[in-house]
Parts: sequence; structure tokens; C-alpha cells
Amino acid sequence: MVKPLSFSAFVMNTASHIIHGLWRDEKGQQINFQNIDIWIDLVKKLEAGGFDAIFFADVIGLYGNYKDGWEHHIKAGLQIPSNDPMTILSALAVHTKRIGLAFTAAPLQEPPFNFARRVSTLDHVSNGRTAWNIVTNSQENAYRNFGYETLVAHDERYRWADEYVDVLYKLWEGSWEDEALLQDREKGVYANPAKVHKIHHVGDYYRVEGPHLVAPSPQRTPVLFQAGASTAGRSFGARHAEAIFIVSPNPESAKKLIQETRDLAVKYGRHADDIQFYQGLSFVIGATEEEARKKEAKLDAQIDIDSILAHAGSGIGIDLGHLDLDSPIEDIETEGIQSTLQWLKQSVTGDVSTVRDLLYLRSKANRIVGTPKSIADQLEKWHDAGIDGINVINAIIPDSYEQFITQVLPILRERGLAKPLEQLEEGKTFRHALFGADKLNKRHPATQYRGAFSGE
Amino acid sequence: MVKPLSFSAFVMNTASHIIHGLWRDEKGQQINFQNIDIWIDLVKKLEAGGFDAIFFADVIGLYGNYKDGWEHHIKAGLQIPSNDPMTILSALAVHTKRIGLAFTAAPLQEPPFNFARRVSTLDHVSNGRTAWNIVTNSQENAYRNFGYETLVAHDERYRWADEYVDVLYKLWEGSWEDEALLQDREKGVYANPAKVHKIHHVGDYYRVEGPHLVAPSPQRTPVLFQAGASTAGRSFGARHAEAIFIVSPNPESAKKLIQETRDLAVKYGRHADDIQFYQGLSFVIGATEEEARKKEAKLDAQIDIDSILAHAGSGIGIDLGHLDLDSPIEDIETEGIQSTLQWLKQSVTGDVSTVRDLLYLRSKANRIVGTPKSIADQLEKWHDAGIDGINVINAIIPDSYEQFITQVLPILRERGLAKPLEQLEEGKTFRHALFGADKLNKRHPATQYRGAFSGE
Repeated sequence: MVKPLSFSAFVMNTASHIIHGLWRDEKGQQINFQNIDIWIDLVKKLEAGGFDAIFFADVIGLYGNYKDGWEHHIKAGLQIPSNDPMTILSALAVHTKRIGLAFTAAPLQEPPFNFARRVSTLDHVSNGRTAWNIVTNSQENAYRNFGYETLVAHDERYRWADEYVDVLYKLWEGSWEDEALLQDREKGVYANPAKVHKIHHVGDYYRVEGPHLVAPSPQRTPVLFQAGASTAGRSFGARHAEAIFIVSPNPESAKKLIQETRDLAVKYGRHADDIQFYQGLSFVIGATEEEARKKEAKLDAQIDIDSILAHAGSGIGIDLGHLDLDSPIEDIETEGIQSTLQWLKQSVTGDVSTVRDLLYLRSKANRIVGTPKSIADQLEKWHDAGIDGINVINAIIPDSYEQFITQVLPILRERGLAKPLEQLEEGKTFRHALFGADKLNKRHPATQYRGAFSGE
Repeated sequence: MVKPLSFSAFVMNTASHIIHGLWRDEKGQQINFQNIDIWIDLVKKLEAGGFDAIFFADVIGLYGNYKDGWEHHIKAGLQIPSNDPMTILSALAVHTKRIGLAFTAAPLQEPPFNFARRVSTLDHVSNGRTAWNIVTNSQENAYRNFGYETLVAHDERYRWADEYVDVLYKLWEGSWEDEALLQDREKGVYANPAKVHKIHHVGDYYRVEGPHLVAPSPQRTPVLFQAGASTAGRSFGARHAEAIFIVSPNPESAKKLIQETRDLAVKYGRHADDIQFYQGLSFVIGATEEEARKKEAKLDAQIDIDSILAHAGSGIGIDLGHLDLDSPIEDIETEGIQSTLQWLKQSVTGDVSTVRDLLYLRSKANRIVGTPKSIADQLEKWHDAGIDGINVINAIIPDSYEQFITQVLPILRERGLAKPLEQLEEGKTFRHALFGADKLNKRHPATQYRGAFSGE
């Protein structure tokens, strides 16, 4: 039997997330992202349509300079303004009953004691549908918003993240035992003090006494998402993540990456299928191939290429604002840029002469264009490469998701590549939907703290 | 014309908030505080019934020891477990249209950049109905949950809070100018970079570069609540607060406190009525005085006196767990306790011999018992002493509020002491409901940052 794929909607509480410039489209609602109603409307549609999760990306500072400053980011709505994703999830939780609710947050943002409490509260509000995408920030401005003079070094950030999650695991898994909460009106005993513990964490970055203030939520630890692609990031993911988001250029490279990460997870004592992999893809859907190509041409004409450059440049720490798009790649002399362009070139297929050609092909690398049937054929290849789900990137909200739900998902269901709607159960936790159990399995490092603090 | 009173529901996202032991009552829903439905149900009732705000208290650590430990707190549900109040407000916001949504938070909890963003996000979600009760924590365990070895000294805490709100004001009032957000689809300009500014804050406690990530919310700065009663606390309140919560033993002392604080506010360049005062009171309502007294006797029998002692002892930093309740006050030899008991004695009226007598009278000091009519008579006295509103303390949720709404408010409306329901307008900001304007007036210190960062 074919294992069906899962589907996550990849969104951000901002004007322009990934396919930049599309906020201008007349059908789009993203322009009004500050209005909670567009998110409530979207999450209801996703839930009714069979999506498994809505997943909010986030930043906590400006991207790096473009053309020597950040004016462009403001003008283009390039992830600024952006509202806090975690804050809106309880509003989405009370308007849904099944879908997973994932947000992004970094250790930089909030002391672990407070973060643990907020996440546990959200897990109560959502009846166990919370997921956390663990990131370590790479925007310099983010660090300067949080008291630092500049970026904390990359590997150091992961050591910091390791301790951060360690504190959280102690609070979520170890502080309250399963039978601690009694709520006994008769005897007047709300909870059993023998089963609630301080954690006395003392580390390099944090000192946290505990106890956790929140009684165990349905999942305790939220479902853990991760997306880091560096060596330190992949090691972190292999140890901690339950779902890893990848953006591979093709199914073959996804297959290789997945195998390597699963091997690493096994090395850390986990099972290969303790981690699920979600490939980020966007879709342009037409009734015919020709119509799909026409739609794609219209989409390409709407794309804000400056924002694509600003976004990509920030990712590699280089201001690409002065790049001549019509220059042949070989003529670009700045060393860091030249090597990045060569690296990008290897990830695309097609004729590439100028920088513009390359960026165009790269922007299409994670886009599938075609009829619902040909898209399903492509997704079958991704499925066969071993991905567990698709992280669906949008061009237009809610349009991109409505089309995917009404046109692509039915065909995937016919082929057994998507779960039948009637199999999607309300009232289960998000982890139960993904792995068949509410709590982390015993191979996860968080679970070492179960029962570890008795007597504290 | 009589100025009507405002009404706030004083609650906490925990098992046992103030009138301890009542979570056991068979009619009470507080026992299930972890279930968001009880809060949605309550806030809808409050809004329909004419309340102006729901106000969540909070703690971020255990109260001080009682009988040498914290076992009692767990057993009694004494503000533990407790869930984060801010996290649930967006869920309440999307189920209401008018009522103010107030939460408590301390500088200790979260870096100002992150806090500013979450509050602004919540103010967007609620269409301008957010209020923040600024506290500086006094639980030692709270500090040990956030990296400190022990309490930060009291006056130091207020200097810290001063800088914390200063950073927030810069982000909320100064970073984005009013006309910054354009959302111009035609021209492809989301916001005007000339009107968005970094704040470059460098102080003793924080370095924050900015810009604020969130475009101006309906109120910009949330409505500012405060409750500190110390000298430093009152100075802080006189400078920053728009609503101050007091727990005076009688109208006369409230009148004096209000006058002193208003005088202080005027000294700081604000107007006397830039601050509103809310007196905390609970109510026992009967059809006759006799029935009310019977209900009170039943209530008194349900009260968990140990939790009252633990709560009060933590407030003064003394473990009252070893106190002999039936001892005459004069026989208590521990010096700190003796002086506290003498201080308490001055705040109550009635015959006091033993410690138990004193605690009983003190617990009644902020309780009004009677028929709806006699309660209205009492509230008239508080009104005439100059309070602007009542912070209604509950014994049982939702019962205490349902009774107040159906029995007391109608009589207050007849006397002009409560606003007619038809005058309560949906779609206004909370500040507009209190002060007739969405934004802070120019006398408030936050507003010094409007236009202060042009060119940054």
C-alpha cells in the first residue's frame, strides 16, 4: 500500500513572504495580513480541504542590506511589516478542530521558562495541535534588536539552541509527572505535590529553577519542526526534529538528503522514520499545459526580482543590489558572488548565460507547472523519492491553496497519495496525526527527563 | 450628571486566584481553567452584560514558602498550575467585539523587542482592545526561573521597568510614522521607507536597534494598567499608568490615595483625570440581607485559610505557615509578623482578638454583602469617593459575574452609575471607550518619541 503524503501550508504573517511581488495581485488577501480574518478564513479552508498543518515562517529583524540599505525591504513589504505568528495561533486554534498549528521561533527571542509556558498554554488551547519550528537566526539586525552588537557565530548558535531545548524538555517532560493533576473537588487537592518537580537547570546559557507552571498539555513537547541545512543544522535536526523542511532542487537530491539525515538520526539512537521530510513546492495549475504555461508567464511578470535578490543575498550575507542582471555569470568578479552563482548553477537544469537566466531558472526549481494530472505525476516522483509531505508555498492567498485543494488533492486521493477526507480525524493531537501517538517516543532526547526530577 | 462607573472582571488563568478554596465549589468552572471554552464563554457573557474589560492577573513563579515548602501551593492550586494569559487573549479577541482585554506581564519575562511585537500583533488582532498591566515581580522563584540567583532589589526593579517601557514607547510610538503604511498595489509600494525608523536604543539594561517589525496598531501603545502600592510603584504609576488598580479598605482611604496619586501625576505634567482608578471588590448577593448573610457564611466555610495565609505571607516575605490562628495577636512574638498583624489590624473595623479574627475581618474588607439595592448603595459611596471603576473579584466563575450582571448592574444603571448597554459601542478601541481617543494623549511620556527618529 502506498503511504499517502501530508500537506502543510507554508505562510508568513507578513506582506511578502517568498514569491515576492505577488501581494499586489488583485485576488490576493496577503496585503491585509494584519487582519486576523484572512487567517481564520484560510485555516478553515485548509482544514476542510484536507491539509494537515498551517506553518508560519518568521523573522525577528530586517534582512541584510540591499543596495546599501533597507529602504527596499520596507517599500517591497519584504517580510516587514511582519506580525508575531505565535500570538495569532490561539485565535486560529479556536476556529479549527484538527489542523496542526506551527509557528517559528528562535532561542534569541524569549527566555526558555517563558517560552515553555506559552507553548504549553497554546497546546492546551489547541487540544494538542501545536508545532514549533526551531530556528537559529542569521539576520544581523535580529541580534541588534536583542542586545547583541552583531551575529552570534553559526556553530555557537546551535550549542545555544541545544541548551535552550534542553531546558524546555526538562520543563515539558520532567517537571510534572503524568498523574500529578488530580483536580479533586472532594478532597480539596488540585495537584499532587509529590509529582511536581523543580528542574534546577544550570548551564552555560541558562539557569532555570522551575517547576514548570503549566500542567502537562496534550502533547507535552510540541511537534518539533526544523529546517537547517548546514552541518550543525542537520546534526541538530537529526537529534531533535520530528519533521524537517527541505527545499531540494529535485527528487534525486531530496532522496540523498533524506537518506543521509535518517542515517544520522539512527546514529543518534532514533529510528529512520522518527523524522518526516516535507519538500517545499509551489504550483501553477492550468486546465491544459498551455493554460498553465500562460499562467506561469503572468506570474513571472508579476515577480519583484529586486526582492528575490535582496532575500537571496541576505541568505548568503552579500548585498546583491549592485548586480548587473544581464551580465554573463562568468563576468561577475566579486568572489563571494561568483562562487554562489556557480553553486546555484549546479542546482538548476536549462541553458544559463546571464545572471537573470540563472535567477529565473532557480525561481522555477521548486515550482511545478501543469495540469492537475501532470502535477500529480510530478508529486508521485517526489513521493517515490521518499518525502513524507509537501510544504505548499503560495503565490496568492487564499487562491493558491483553494486551487490545490479543489484540483490537485482529489487526483492525489484517487492514487492513494493523499489521505481520504473521512480518514482525517478531529480531536486528535497533531503528533497523533503524524506518528500515531500523542507524546514523543522514547528514542527522542527530550524523554530522558521523564521521571528525572523525582524528589526535587 | 453622574459619571458612570466602569467594570472590569478580575480573573486569573489558574486554579485558585484570590478567594482561595472556591475552585472546589460544584458550580464553579475555574477548576477547568485549562479549557479555553470556559474563558470564551465568560468573556462573551461579560461583553453582553456590559463589562468594560476582562483583566488577567499573573505570576511567573511560585509564591514564597508556606510551612517551609511549596507543597501546599500545588495541593491547593494556589496560582499553580497557571497558564500564560497573553497567549489566550487572541482567542478571546476573535470571539468578542467590544470588551477590553488586559493581561499582566513583567520586564523579567521577555526582551522588549519581542514583547513590543507580540503586543502590537495582539492589538491588531483585537482591533485595538489590548491593555497591559505592568508589574515588577516580587517572587524569588520567578527570578530563579529567569537566570537570577535571587530577587532584584525593589527600587532597582522600577528603574529597570522604566527603561523597559522606554524601549517599548520608542518602538510603539516612534518607529513607524502614521502615514508609513501605504499598501499601494498600483505602485507596488507597501510602506514608505522615509517614515519607518530604527530607534537605536542604548541604555543600562537594553540595546535595541529597531525598526519595530509591526506597523502601527489601532492603539499603538496598549492601554497601560498598573497596581503597585509602594513609593516607587506609585511614582511609576503616576508617570505611566492610564488605569490604576487599588485595593483600599474603605472609600475614605481610596479617596486619599487617589488624590495623592493624581497630584503626583500632575507634578509629572499629566492631567488629574489622565489616570482612572479601579477598586477591587467582591460581592455576595442575596434577595434579602438575611439570604446574603447565609450565602456569606457558606462562602466563609469554603475558604481555604491556609492558602489565604500562604498568599498573604508571600506578599510580605514571611512564612505564615507556623502561625497559631487561635493565639491572641499580642502573643505572636516573631517581630516581622507582629508588626504586619498590627498594620493589618488598623485596616479593618470590628472586634479583633485572635489571628483568626483578624484574617476573617481582613478577608471581608473588600467584600460587599447584601441585596442588589444595598450593594448599589455601597458602590455609590465608592463612586462618590472618586473611583472610576470596580475591578470585580470572583468567588465562582462564571456565577459571580452572572449574578453581578443580572442583579446589580441593572440597579446601577437606573441610578446612572453604570452605562446603559446601548451606549456601549462595538468597533471602538479600548482606550476610546475609557478616554474618548485611540492614542495616548500628548501629556504621556510615551508620546515624546512621536517623530523623534526621523532620518534613522
